[in-house]
Amino acid sequence: MIAPGSTHASMAELNRSRIIQLLHLNGVSSRAHIARELGLTPAAITKITAQLIDMGIISETGNLDGIKKRRSIGLKLNESKYRVIGVKFARSIIQIGVFDLGGNLESAQTLPPVDNDDIPATLEDIKTRVNALLDRDPSIVAIGMAVPGPYLRDEGRIAVVTSMIGWQNVNFLDEYEHAFRVPVFIEQDARAGALAQSLFNPHVSSNNIAYYLVGEGVGLGLMDHGGLINGELGAATEIGHISIDVNGEACECGNRGCLERYCSAVRLHRLINEAGVVEGSESMTHADACRALFARLGHDDVCDELFRSLATYVGYGCAMIINAFNPKQIAIGDILAEAGQPLLDTVREVVRQRIIPALSETTEILLSDLPADATLSGAAAVAAAQFLEHPTEFVEPRDDDGV
Amino acid sequence: MIAPGSTHASMAELNRSRIIQLLHLNGVSSRAHIARELGLTPAAITKITAQLIDMGIISETGNLDGIKKRRSIGLKLNESKYRVIGVKFARSIIQIGVFDLGGNLESAQTLPPVDNDDIPATLEDIKTRVNALLDRDPSIVAIGMAVPGPYLRDEGRIAVVTSMIGWQNVNFLDEYEHAFRVPVFIEQDARAGALAQSLFNPHVSSNNIAYYLVGEGVGLGLMDHGGLINGELGAATEIGHISIDVNGEACECGNRGCLERYCSAVRLHRLINEAGVVEGSESMTHADACRALFARLGHDDVCDELFRSLATYVGYGCAMIINAFNPKQIAIGDILAEAGQPLLDTVREVVRQRIIPALSETTEILLSDLPADATLSGAAAVAAAQFLEHPTEFVEPRDDDGV
Repeated sequence: MIAPGSTHASMAELNRSRIIQLLHLNGVSSRAHIARELGLTPAAITKITAQLIDMGIISETGNLDGIKKRRSIGLKLNESKYRVIGVKFARSIIQIGVFDLGGNLESAQTLPPVDNDDIPATLEDIKTRVNALLDRDPSIVAIGMAVPGPYLRDEGRIAVVTSMIGWQNVNFLDEYEHAFRVPVFIEQDARAGALAQSLFNPHVSSNNIAYYLVGEGVGLGLMDHGGLINGELGAATEIGHISIDVNGEACECGNRGCLERYCSAVRLHRLINEAGVVEGSESMTHADACRALFARLGHDDVCDELFRSLATYVGYGCAMIINAFNPKQIAIGDILAEAGQPLLDTVREVVRQRIIPALSETTEILLSDLPADATLSGAAAVAAAQFLEHPTEFVEPRDDDGV
Repeated sequence: MIAPGSTHASMAELNRSRIIQLLHLNGVSSRAHIARELGLTPAAITKITAQLIDMGIISETGNLDGIKKRRSIGLKLNESKYRVIGVKFARSIIQIGVFDLGGNLESAQTLPPVDNDDIPATLEDIKTRVNALLDRDPSIVAIGMAVPGPYLRDEGRIAVVTSMIGWQNVNFLDEYEHAFRVPVFIEQDARAGALAQSLFNPHVSSNNIAYYLVGEGVGLGLMDHGGLINGELGAATEIGHISIDVNGEACECGNRGCLERYCSAVRLHRLINEAGVVEGSESMTHADACRALFARLGHDDVCDELFRSLATYVGYGCAMIINAFNPKQIAIGDILAEAGQPLLDTVREVVRQRIIPALSETTEILLSDLPADATLSGAAAVAAAQFLEHPTEFVEPRDDDGV
């Protein structure tokens, strides 16, 4: 419960960070408004904002409110002055995006689908592509990477990856920690997604949010009262390996009946193949087979029933999230979320049945609503959050005598 | 991610709180050591410690290290100068304890076993007993109460109580918020227990700890990087209502296959009755029937097998805790923990089988090791933590010009 050391220098950085974050979340604000919100003196605000303007991180806008006698200049965060790269590692899907600090996607590229044997070549390909982006754009200040969990952050490796075991041999820290001219930050995919909801999703207002990733894997990121839940080794919120049937099928992780085995896109693809409802589904990627099914929903009873049976398990996962974490909002994202309303309808029905009204009625379940995939945005959010929290580690202050 | 307002006054309180907590956790320390640990200037330390000595919260000890040329006076927290009352509400069990700030139990009383119909009279009885303690001891500064979850903290009521529904009609805030001369703080039982592990258990060194309550109910309290996980309404970490079999037996909460139905003391009592292994068990309390079984472990194969089947479910709960929260330490407490080593052996075996080595080998599973029941200590810890964090809300400072 002891707070981190509040030395003079770290107080100055904390105050810079708080001003930047306030401008990021609230938009254009006056110095007086910032002073009130953060409980800082007008003198301190004047000094810190002068530093931040000098560093190019914020700038002045015109007169804010037009009240004649009290001139009130607005301040805004220069979100597009600095950029970050996000890299999403799914199992077969690798995406690279360039974002500004506001989470706006400026460019994105998807690598060719990855197989177990392609992993080493893919790792090199990512280096080449990221370096090309860095060479082209000097405004890029950091790289965020989002990888499937359970990711052991100090070791730099993923402890277990169902249905694509080759990723377990990769050490992400060894590969990327010193590979680029800017720093690299690595986070579990769904946790990165939760950070993206918090930083970039205008429909997420709470600081108790879950990002529930239902794609090739099943993952969860959880922000409780504004802080990400990490666990001792960064392996918390591994909902995909929580059992929903302790006597169920064995999983590669050692457990039985893991949620991930019931409602991943990999499983839906297998069900589609078995039912033969999508022509040529066997040769499609998991994502494409699922999308082909989603396109038939509402027109084909067999497809509806097949999807509903799978979505029910997504709902059981939501019930688990509520009992374990009691978030205010659960944003569902990744491949399964592309089904849209039919997914929401089933999930909400399961939650109504399985959760006490006091909680089911106060938990909002929605689809991730970001301009890019939540994990890709999340990778960028991991880098952007570092910038917002420690601006001087990325941009040198001219006059740091502490405020 | 924005930190709370750091005004002049709250900075002073924060620094007082940090010094108190450091002395609470580290024992006797010199001013120089405190300054180093907290990153404060010697001048600030001198001023704040003078205030705290003046308030009677800390005092000086003799020369610390005996180095001739550098006199170094020790400072210690006056843990026994102030006392707190803890009240544990289980289903049939109500206990009241008086503790010092170090978690040492000074006196305890257990009320007669409570039945559904006795609840209103019991609530009055608690008031009478607590007021008698307050009248007798002016050094009591706060009361903590620990109640079964899911406890909705803003409403003041428990959302669902399996096997003893009468508690759902109690509004704890209405009953107790203004009932005494000192403030009352109410927390979910297992969360209070986690706080007690953190504040009072010398074998708990990590700030990533779980307290896993397996008694008349099944509960969990979780501290992640030093902060309790609460959820939006205080209903997070309700492990007792997470399903371990989505097609299992229906629970009063609406869910199916809730963990609590498989490994509570209520269930063990029923199994004991059905097996007829403890004479007269039907007329015993849940706790006494369980204890009678524990006394036979190692001498009676039928009892061993019956207990092992139940302890396996406690182990499934541990696997769930690891996948959901990745704590460094899990302390198991309450009635089932009284079984001791046989419980630990089974639970550790289940975890070894069901959890990847990277996590099972780094998660320590132990029994709660406190001088009193973890929930009762926890109730006291809830009050003590408030004192350690906001000392001036309990004791008036003489000279508060901010440091």
